[in-house]
Amino acid sequence: MTLTPSRDDKFSFGLWTVGYNGADPFGGPTRKQLDTVHAVEKLAELGAYGVTFHDDDLFPFGASDEVRQGEVDRFKQVLADTGLIVPMVTTNLFSAPVFKDGGFTSNDRSVRRFALRKVLRNVDLAAELGAKTYVMWGGRDGAEYAHSKDVRVALERYREAVNLLGDYVTDKGYDIRFAIEPKPNEPRGDILLPTLGHAMAFIQTLDRPDLVGINPETGHEQMAGLSFTAGIAQALYQGKLFHIDLNGQRGIKYDQDLVFGHGDLYDAFALVDLLENGGVQGGRSYDGPRHFDYKPSRTEDEAGVWESARANMRNYLLLKERAAAFRADPEVREALEAAKAPQLAQPTLGEHESYDDLLGDRSAFEDFDASAYLNGKGFGFVRLQQLATEHLLGAR
Amino acid sequence: MTLTPSRDDKFSFGLWTVGYNGADPFGGPTRKQLDTVHAVEKLAELGAYGVTFHDDDLFPFGASDEVRQGEVDRFKQVLADTGLIVPMVTTNLFSAPVFKDGGFTSNDRSVRRFALRKVLRNVDLAAELGAKTYVMWGGRDGAEYAHSKDVRVALERYREAVNLLGDYVTDKGYDIRFAIEPKPNEPRGDILLPTLGHAMAFIQTLDRPDLVGINPETGHEQMAGLSFTAGIAQALYQGKLFHIDLNGQRGIKYDQDLVFGHGDLYDAFALVDLLENGGVQGGRSYDGPRHFDYKPSRTEDEAGVWESARANMRNYLLLKERAAAFRADPEVREALEAAKAPQLAQPTLGEHESYDDLLGDRSAFEDFDASAYLNGKGFGFVRLQQLATEHLLGAR
Amino acid sequence: MTLTPSRDDKFSFGLWTVGYNGADPFGGPTRKQLDTVHAVEKLAELGAYGVTFHDDDLFPFGASDEVRQGEVDRFKQVLADTGLIVPMVTTNLFSAPVFKDGGFTSNDRSVRRFALRKVLRNVDLAAELGAKTYVMWGGRDGAEYAHSKDVRVALERYREAVNLLGDYVTDKGYDIRFAIEPKPNEPRGDILLPTLGHAMAFIQTLDRPDLVGINPETGHEQMAGLSFTAGIAQALYQGKLFHIDLNGQRGIKYDQDLVFGHGDLYDAFALVDLLENGGVQGGRSYDGPRHFDYKPSRTEDEAGVWESARANMRNYLLLKERAAAFRADPEVREALEAAKAPQLAQPTLGEHESYDDLLGDRSAFEDFDASAYLNGKGFGFVRLQQLATEHLLGAR
Amino acid sequence: MTLTPSRDDKFSFGLWTVGYNGADPFGGPTRKQLDTVHAVEKLAELGAYGVTFHDDDLFPFGASDEVRQGEVDRFKQVLADTGLIVPMVTTNLFSAPVFKDGGFTSNDRSVRRFALRKVLRNVDLAAELGAKTYVMWGGRDGAEYAHSKDVRVALERYREAVNLLGDYVTDKGYDIRFAIEPKPNEPRGDILLPTLGHAMAFIQTLDRPDLVGINPETGHEQMAGLSFTAGIAQALYQGKLFHIDLNGQRGIKYDQDLVFGHGDLYDAFALVDLLENGGVQGGRSYDGPRHFDYKPSRTEDEAGVWESARANMRNYLLLKERAAAFRADPEVREALEAAKAPQLAQPTLGEHESYDDLLGDRSAFEDFDASAYLNGKGFGFVRLQQLATEHLLGAR
Repeated sequence: MTLTPSRDDKFSFGLWTVGYNGADPFGGPTRKQLDTVHAVEKLAELGAYGVTFHDDDLFPFGASDEVRQGEVDRFKQVLADTGLIVPMVTTNLFSAPVFKDGGFTSNDRSVRRFALRKVLRNVDLAAELGAKTYVMWGGRDGAEYAHSKDVRVALERYREAVNLLGDYVTDKGYDIRFAIEPKPNEPRGDILLPTLGHAMAFIQTLDRPDLVGINPETGHEQMAGLSFTAGIAQALYQGKLFHIDLNGQRGIKYDQDLVFGHGDLYDAFALVDLLENGGVQGGRSYDGPRHFDYKPSRTEDEAGVWESARANMRNYLLLKERAAAFRADPEVREALEAAKAPQLAQPTLGEHESYDDLLGDRSAFEDFDASAYLNGKGFGFVRLQQLATEHLLGAR
Repeated sequence: MTLTPSRDDKFSFGLWTVGYNGADPFGGPTRKQLDTVHAVEKLAELGAYGVTFHDDDLFPFGASDEVRQGEVDRFKQVLADTGLIVPMVTTNLFSAPVFKDGGFTSNDRSVRRFALRKVLRNVDLAAELGAKTYVMWGGRDGAEYAHSKDVRVALERYREAVNLLGDYVTDKGYDIRFAIEPKPNEPRGDILLPTLGHAMAFIQTLDRPDLVGINPETGHEQMAGLSFTAGIAQALYQGKLFHIDLNGQRGIKYDQDLVFGHGDLYDAFALVDLLENGGVQGGRSYDGPRHFDYKPSRTEDEAGVWESARANMRNYLLLKERAAAFRADPEVREALEAAKAPQLAQPTLGEHESYDDLLGDRSAFEDFDASAYLNGKGFGFVRLQQLATEHLLGAR
Repeated sequence: MTLTPSRDDKFSFGLWTVGYNGADPFGGPTRKQLDTVHAVEKLAELGAYGVTFHDDDLFPFGASDEVRQGEVDRFKQVLADTGLIVPMVTTNLFSAPVFKDGGFTSNDRSVRRFALRKVLRNVDLAAELGAKTYVMWGGRDGAEYAHSKDVRVALERYREAVNLLGDYVTDKGYDIRFAIEPKPNEPRGDILLPTLGHAMAFIQTLDRPDLVGINPETGHEQMAGLSFTAGIAQALYQGKLFHIDLNGQRGIKYDQDLVFGHGDLYDAFALVDLLENGGVQGGRSYDGPRHFDYKPSRTEDEAGVWESARANMRNYLLLKERAAAFRADPEVREALEAAKAPQLAQPTLGEHESYDDLLGDRSAFEDFDASAYLNGKGFGFVRLQQLATEHLLGAR
Repeated sequence: MTLTPSRDDKFSFGLWTVGYNGADPFGGPTRKQLDTVHAVEKLAELGAYGVTFHDDDLFPFGASDEVRQGEVDRFKQVLADTGLIVPMVTTNLFSAPVFKDGGFTSNDRSVRRFALRKVLRNVDLAAELGAKTYVMWGGRDGAEYAHSKDVRVALERYREAVNLLGDYVTDKGYDIRFAIEPKPNEPRGDILLPTLGHAMAFIQTLDRPDLVGINPETGHEQMAGLSFTAGIAQALYQGKLFHIDLNGQRGIKYDQDLVFGHGDLYDAFALVDLLENGGVQGGRSYDGPRHFDYKPSRTEDEAGVWESARANMRNYLLLKERAAAFRADPEVREALEAAKAPQLAQPTLGEHESYDDLLGDRSAFEDFDASAYLNGKGFGFVRLQQLATEHLLGAR
């Protein structure tokens, strides 16, 4: 196994990630604007296969048609030159003052109409560039105060918007699916659809639920104290993992957007194992881009930007290597067996067994010895975790 | 408006709430077992209309048929004597050692079969007692370590169990719906279906999705740092609020189960406003029991138990009174108008407006003045929040 | 009691609070720069008695001497015109790129020297303006990664800096004390001296510990899930509450800087009670400025800025009124007595009682009936909390 | 370097750790009581050098003198047989109902007297067994509601108790120091002295501050979202790290007490590096016991208990090995240099430089080029973190 990224690894980066200028709530930029062409060339050189963007990453908000087209043309040229693709595109509905109460769910109807137009325009560009996934992050769609936003009505407006977009891409024949990106808070006190669970639940209410999935981000779920890997597993179970944002977060606090692998290492290890090897039954589980949505730390200059970009990919590959060794270790297999992990894949009822059959099975209840689980029948989960630890640490 | 609870208020309590003996991770009981009959009589006296229970609240785990029937009979008698009803019943699949790795999703298949039998038996009792809702809290269904539980497979087992239960109540003709109760963690490191969003998403995968909803608990959602009221609003939007557990929690920490109103007061205020008055368009939004799932503090003796039971209901009624005054205040209405709250209820597209129409509307984009939102067009949300504060504090 | 602020209430605001332009990690300004003179005039009109500032609030970072003096002169004039005082001054060691790894503890020695010079210059200005407190918030002094900052060595550098400042103000005869402002994280992953406890512990290592206290901020302690009121009580106990920053925060998340009273209402109520009425024995406990360090929400225009400034003061006064009524209520006094609150003020040992006396007192141990606390001797804390709730809600 | 623990590693365990029976807030024991003699023998066999205990771990609360002495004698015998020592002893002031409002700070004065007697008795036993550290965890000393506990008065009572204990051990000539163990919450809503910072600050108020230090626990600090390693560094800086409790915690939630190394791996790595290698200047930094205060997961039987005990020590040794390699790597040294880490150890002022000299140094301010830090002078912290990652993962 190699630790050098190749295009087969499907690593992609947002323009806004390596392009992050270091501005944060307590300070201005520490780095100058990165030129798009330069950024794409460097990403290609480092081993990425794809690049993604918000409209406002490529050309300034409110740019004239001419400026916009000029930037699009330069971008297309560098894509052609480097062979990088654009697997995903998204819209910025959060930076400009007009979106201060959100985009699709702003209380101000004219803002909602403007937001829809901004998205429609960018969907056309996404289709033109061959993107297969269109991400929607409604980071300003929320509230600081419960009484300033009627959540049911906001969901109805969000639904109206996504339905319209679904009609649009369908009618146009675009080969594009939508992916909602959840986040619990920041920049709003509470954001609509705060976790991947809320987003998947909402999708069921849409006119075209099959056209819409999710784009979960490591740090966003961890900001709610949730296991990212468990969430991804549920998304896979429900067929909704359309895209993924990988990064690092150290606990419940502001959105850190660290390098993938520089956050919760156990979760990163389990996640790569899941994405690459599937679960107990094995089998690759996710075929889409491994998209890094992170920020090079504000303390770094441009050299640090590229170090950090490289680190994302290297950590993914290192964890992939560790996960393969973990899966291949006979002692791990034995420990999984002892932990009855394979038994979970066995249906609880026998083939053709009805509830009446179950009710008639005295061994299941009347003669079942529940007391055997006191001081006995341990699951050996700690041993399994220790094996995982030692593989993660490269100590086996 | 009165602050004395009546049966029309539909207040209900779990037997395990007032019956909590004070045991916690660092200490044993501080109160003796409360007799069921006494508990029901007191709740009736205080103004509750319903009482709920886990099987093991009413009769000990593993009780003989005789002991079990004796306790059921005493319970029925006191229900008859007091007129209290049993709106909801649930199963304990978490206390006994046999459930140490969960119930429906234990890695151990024989435990899963035992769990199903335990539930089926209690569902019969629930039907016999006239309960309309059957709650499922899978508090032990989870893991401390990612590799000890394959979440996709666990969801498949959970689905198998709920599908079987759905078949069962349908075939039997029971007038019972199921409600899944989510929780992010404790007693497991990460629990399956950690938030109400995850639970609602999962429900869509079931054979009978209409038969299953959720039973969210204030503190459980707040343990993930989420707005409880926003979650309830989404549950109402999706028609899934089958039951509700009210209590108090002070931030992201262990499950506190404080009295309703002794936690996050703003959220409690907004919640009661939502449950009683609906949103902007008004209208009662939830007709089910107001169920308190709390624990009287371990520092209290029995007098404190009843003080705390009373406090739950009194706080609900106080907040209901405050919410009514808030809604009726002309200045609040004016502030909501200024905040464009009613505009959110207006569809973003005009009647019969197509996306082509929208694309052709220059006022929506080309001629739209986005710059007007810089230094202008404020939403007045702080003023609205201040009005809410003053109503909450009884200062208007 | 009046709800109209007067100068006797000692309300003060930072220039950067009402002057916040709305920029956050995901968006630029929504409001234009507020002129200093206008801001001071408005604050005076609304009832504040004081205004505070960072050097870079008054004149831009790197301003020429002339520009700087011009702004200082305009400021002095408006202070003279309005009668507002400057109770506190502080330095901005966090916004400019030069401080990207902190000020006093930057790994870069020349940055540390520059930081010291910047502070010394501003201390002179503080003295000139009559400020009695000089706040130090080392928001960039920290790290995202454990290995990039040796915390012991950083503390040694921080100590060196504060010792030098202590010598300076002493030698100059300035009537100024220093106050360290703790914060757990944001903008750094982990900030040095993360809580008020850490700051007070550190102060003991200084050459002039009496010259240095703390300036705790509501939201900062709450970002670590800690009780702000309990922390303030410890600071008062240790004589270290030199200044206080009041605002609102809704749980463990990014720094929200909401209006005071728009966060955790119970904590705000208890805090005002503590600041105004002291504890069980009564007596005013803090005589310094009630300083609001908050941000008007980004959704607001200038009208909302002043609404929010007003709301801070009004909420403080409302809670002061509620706290006075709570203290005066005979039922509260009786409940405090029942909760044995006054007994806590009684020393555990009798007057002149030695440990030998205690060891000889059989009633204290051998004959003490510990079993009486099972099912008895409840503390009635829930009742007390319910009384607090009802006073807070204006329902008694 | 070996991964087999030896007594030189100074690993110790509490009797209550391996002896944990699995009871938690939602379920009873899953394991039977472990006999003391058996536990000590197993710990000795696994490589521990010490064992610690609460009084109530060794003999039941309220045991007769005879039962107590019998258990003490059996314990002494097995210590003699195995050669294990007792480096630390502590008191249980939290499990029995009598302590429901705490020990030293219960509102009930007779409880406080009883608590003092219980501690004095156990301090005699600690001295008899040769323990050098006496830990005080006041887990019940706190409150759920701000008005039920006057924190200033509680601190005064806590101070009274610790002063008395200081007099006692001094007068008796015991070679014992005290160590306060902080915790933010659980089992109380807010606990007195919630972090190691608060505890160190409090210690300064004592009559014998040198006699009292702290015993921080990994998970307790992490329950407040704080960096454990940074806290330990401050404790070392202040000479207050008298003892340490190592375990694992996965974020802000209930107290998990996982195996050391099964929580936040980055923090565990940095911590072992700090404890073993000191900081930038090197040198061993802590010579006391490496004490594991953890709970074997409830899912395990006795085999899992010993697996988990073994895992604590193995992970410590693995991380020690990784830290040594990290320190020895020339590329790491070069990266530390590039990050200016050694420069932080250099005083900010030159030898004999006064503030006047600094004020006269134009290169420090007037001629200093602050703009060079925009787009330049990066710190290379991400590269350093990536090197740490690769060493942690055994990939270098």
